[in-house]
Amino acid sequence: MSEAPNPTGPALVELLGMVAYGELLAFDRMAADARLAPDLHRRAVLSEMAAVEIVNYRRLATRLTELGVEPAEAMTPYVAALHEYHDSTEPKDWLEALTKAYVGDSIADDFFREVAACLAEPDRQLVLDVLHDSQYADYACHEIRAAIAADPKLANRLSMWARRLVGEALSQAQRVAAERVALTVLVVEGTGDQAGVAALFKRLTAAHTGRMTAVGLNN
Amino acid sequence: MSEAPNPTGPALVELLGMVAYGELLAFDRMAADARLAPDLHRRAVLSEMAAVEIVNYRRLATRLTELGVEPAEAMTPYVAALHEYHDSTEPKDWLEALTKAYVGDSIADDFFREVAACLAEPDRQLVLDVLHDSQYADYACHEIRAAIAADPKLANRLSMWARRLVGEALSQAQRVAAERVALTVLVVEGTGDQAGVAALFKRLTAAHTGRMTAVGLNN
Repeated sequence: MSEAPNPTGPALVELLGMVAYGELLAFDRMAADARLAPDLHRRAVLSEMAAVEIVNYRRLATRLTELGVEPAEAMTPYVAALHEYHDSTEPKDWLEALTKAYVGDSIADDFFREVAACLAEPDRQLVLDVLHDSQYADYACHEIRAAIAADPKLANRLSMWARRLVGEALSQAQRVAAERVALTVLVVEGTGDQAGVAALFKRLTAAHTGRMTAVGLNN
Repeated sequence: MSEAPNPTGPALVELLGMVAYGELLAFDRMAADARLAPDLHRRAVLSEMAAVEIVNYRRLATRLTELGVEPAEAMTPYVAALHEYHDSTEPKDWLEALTKAYVGDSIADDFFREVAACLAEPDRQLVLDVLHDSQYADYACHEIRAAIAADPKLANRLSMWARRLVGEALSQAQRVAAERVALTVLVVEGTGDQAGVAALFKRLTAAHTGRMTAVGLNN
């Protein structure tokens, strides 16, 4: 991102609301995914990772309250889009759940990291902190690689699944971008212009492709 | 309980394994119940309470590891019984979820508190600490009372639901008692004899009846 326009007001609240709801949903989804775990040990690991998201949620909710905004109110605009995304991409098993976390969380984290660059302190650091804390993608990466090494046929099914996830995520992202004007303006201004937005998408896509290759999936 | 026989070995591991699995399940169930919450604020509150259970789980798992036992191994014997209990008592809405937490968690906590009295330190304090930390029952009590005050007809449906919960819980508890011999011996020795066990059940029942009355439900 080319500059830090120091946004306050609507754009900051929209961003923090989105990240906060993302944490609450990440918690929810990891807790649900834990039920798909093939053994008690993995289930406990995932449950412990889920609990970390709540600590992050609390930090974001506290910051929103400081800014004079009810956290629930700031999160509400994202409920429908994220609900639809998750409803249309319900994992059927443990590996689909892991792939979803690996693909989706990583793209979301990359995006938020770019947007964080548009923020002033303390919000920039707050967003970077909560993103950094997410361990699920690393764990998922490790598990997916091991599963594909043990059964190479899995790569095809999981690659198709990953493509579907990206498609659904993009369609909900467009919806959010159209509805959250202040946030969209922040991203466009932060990247410079329309060409900057295109460059941002190119970076996100390249990083995604690299991650797919890293675990043995095809883009 | 009449004495503290200072159990080590199988009974202690069986008890800590049961409490640890209880925490993991409480987390799981509260995370699932959060999805039934009527608004984002309540959903966040419940998610934050769920995360506390994981901190407790970690303490118990660490203690089991210290005792040379793999936590997953110590928890495994309780998976089937608790799974069946929860499967047969899936709440259909937010108030059923709250009632289940209020009724079930409170009876379980009372029982574990009695059994903790049979333990030596540091395990006695550990069990009491993790029980004390459970805030869901108090929260549920408050919400149920408010809901019944607003709509007294609810009391009948929730009273029937509570009776079903107790029935299912007792049938699974009998199964665990028959399978976990060391733990059952600990409870019988801790209470003194068969009459002591009967007195224990009487105390648990009396406390349950008191809690039902407190929120406006019939036993």
